[in-house]
Amino acid sequence: MCGHLLAAGYAVRVFNRSRDRAGPLVEAGAEWCDSAAEVAAGSDVIFSIVGFPADVRSVILGPAGVLEGAASGSVVVDMTTSEPTLAVEIFTAAADHGVESLDAPVSGGDVGARNATLVVMVGGSGPAFDRVLPLFERLGQKIVLEGGPGAGQHTKMMNQIAIASGMIGVCEALLYAHSAGLDLERALDTISGGAAGSWSLTNYSPRILRGDLEPGFKIDHFLKDLGIALEEAAKMGLDLPGLALAKELYLAAREQGYGQKGTHALIAPLALRSGVDPGLGRGP
Amino acid sequence: MCGHLLAAGYAVRVFNRSRDRAGPLVEAGAEWCDSAAEVAAGSDVIFSIVGFPADVRSVILGPAGVLEGAASGSVVVDMTTSEPTLAVEIFTAAADHGVESLDAPVSGGDVGARNATLVVMVGGSGPAFDRVLPLFERLGQKIVLEGGPGAGQHTKMMNQIAIASGMIGVCEALLYAHSAGLDLERALDTISGGAAGSWSLTNYSPRILRGDLEPGFKIDHFLKDLGIALEEAAKMGLDLPGLALAKELYLAAREQGYGQKGTHALIAPLALRSGVDPGLGRGP
Repeated sequence: MCGHLLAAGYAVRVFNRSRDRAGPLVEAGAEWCDSAAEVAAGSDVIFSIVGFPADVRSVILGPAGVLEGAASGSVVVDMTTSEPTLAVEIFTAAADHGVESLDAPVSGGDVGARNATLVVMVGGSGPAFDRVLPLFERLGQKIVLEGGPGAGQHTKMMNQIAIASGMIGVCEALLYAHSAGLDLERALDTISGGAAGSWSLTNYSPRILRGDLEPGFKIDHFLKDLGIALEEAAKMGLDLPGLALAKELYLAAREQGYGQKGTHALIAPLALRSGVDPGLGRGP
Repeated sequence: MCGHLLAAGYAVRVFNRSRDRAGPLVEAGAEWCDSAAEVAAGSDVIFSIVGFPADVRSVILGPAGVLEGAASGSVVVDMTTSEPTLAVEIFTAAADHGVESLDAPVSGGDVGARNATLVVMVGGSGPAFDRVLPLFERLGQKIVLEGGPGAGQHTKMMNQIAIASGMIGVCEALLYAHSAGLDLERALDTISGGAAGSWSLTNYSPRILRGDLEPGFKIDHFLKDLGIALEEAAKMGLDLPGLALAKELYLAAREQGYGQKGTHALIAPLALRSGVDPGLGRGP
């Protein structure tokens, strides 16, 4: 993502806990900084994308964090999938420094990041969105201001909720078809174009059938998202049993050693609870 | 479906428990018969499409049923979504009469039936499939021999399993987005083209958002399918928690009076268990 900005000719300053990982960007012309605060001090727009909400809090609100360095009039953009309430907290803290903030989580995975085809779901003010839009357009193909602070994160949660139960359906359908002795490729081809069709069915089923459980998007990261979604839902008084089931199944997948595999490795806990080979008799 | 065969110039004989409902077909040139056996006696290929497995059993295997009348060399085609094991039983009973049989459930709903765009999932022998294929091609746009007797039904079950959990994901995502105060149309548009995308999300979400819960495909019928799928899964030793959850939620929907509404009325039991208006504040 940073590489796309460099390639477009923007002056870029970078910081990362592991300096080595920023090596290729520095070689490509980015200026190394020793802290997030130092990045922020010299920048009009400051992007962060880290792991967990605690990391977001630390890198933006913590010591030597973005808000320590950010000049009045700059814009802080957190692209981590994180808590909507934290996005609101950052918005307020940033405003106290005369700084704007946007929450802007993405979907599209590593492929989308590499090919600049991400979907960017943005929460914040219209003027801040307009200022950052030319930069977003270097990173993604669909950039939408969803509403005020937190609305980007909420839209990402909506996205993950739809994916979670959808993946249960895909994996259970494959498991059933396998146990029924169907020709899986043929049956998949039959149902993919109809009412059962989905992005997950089309894109992940073939990987499951060839025993390829590499990510895509890692279960450990998806579990973070499902945890946030369930907490937010609980705050709203929502009882979402499909989401709760998905989290339970993905926790089982992690316990079974699939945390670093892709979300479609949900086939494993489902197969194992029925005593079926997670490779559906064909995996490597 | 019968009308398409008539329109293609085939000689058609019809029977229905409620004669009135066959009126338009008789007017269009179909010959009325007083029983399924009588239909079968004069036909090379006999189609049935009824409600429940008990109805299939009655109309094909029962007194005055298809196999009482079917001539040796004819083909019985049951297009009801029904039990795979019953399809195998019919195949065996038909063979005892020198009759071939195919199970051939469809997807695509009333619209697919009307526009001859159904997907036809067929189980049975290759030669019987080849004989009936020109007729199937008048009814659908994708016709696939999935395997031996019961394979058509199993493929339909696979289809319904994928749809069931997928619909939970769609409805929970909408419910979350509504409670989060998002602009639902905008958020839906954002996520529909990405990894959360599905036929259900694209086709049913707009209906839910305008409070239109008319079928599509009725919950009462979907509950039949989910019951069959769960029973078949249990016979195979499979524990499918997403499917079980879907059945529980759809049973709640039926108890709440949504049995004659479409499958997307799953929004109702999900909303109600959280005390949210099933119309998401905008329904009629």
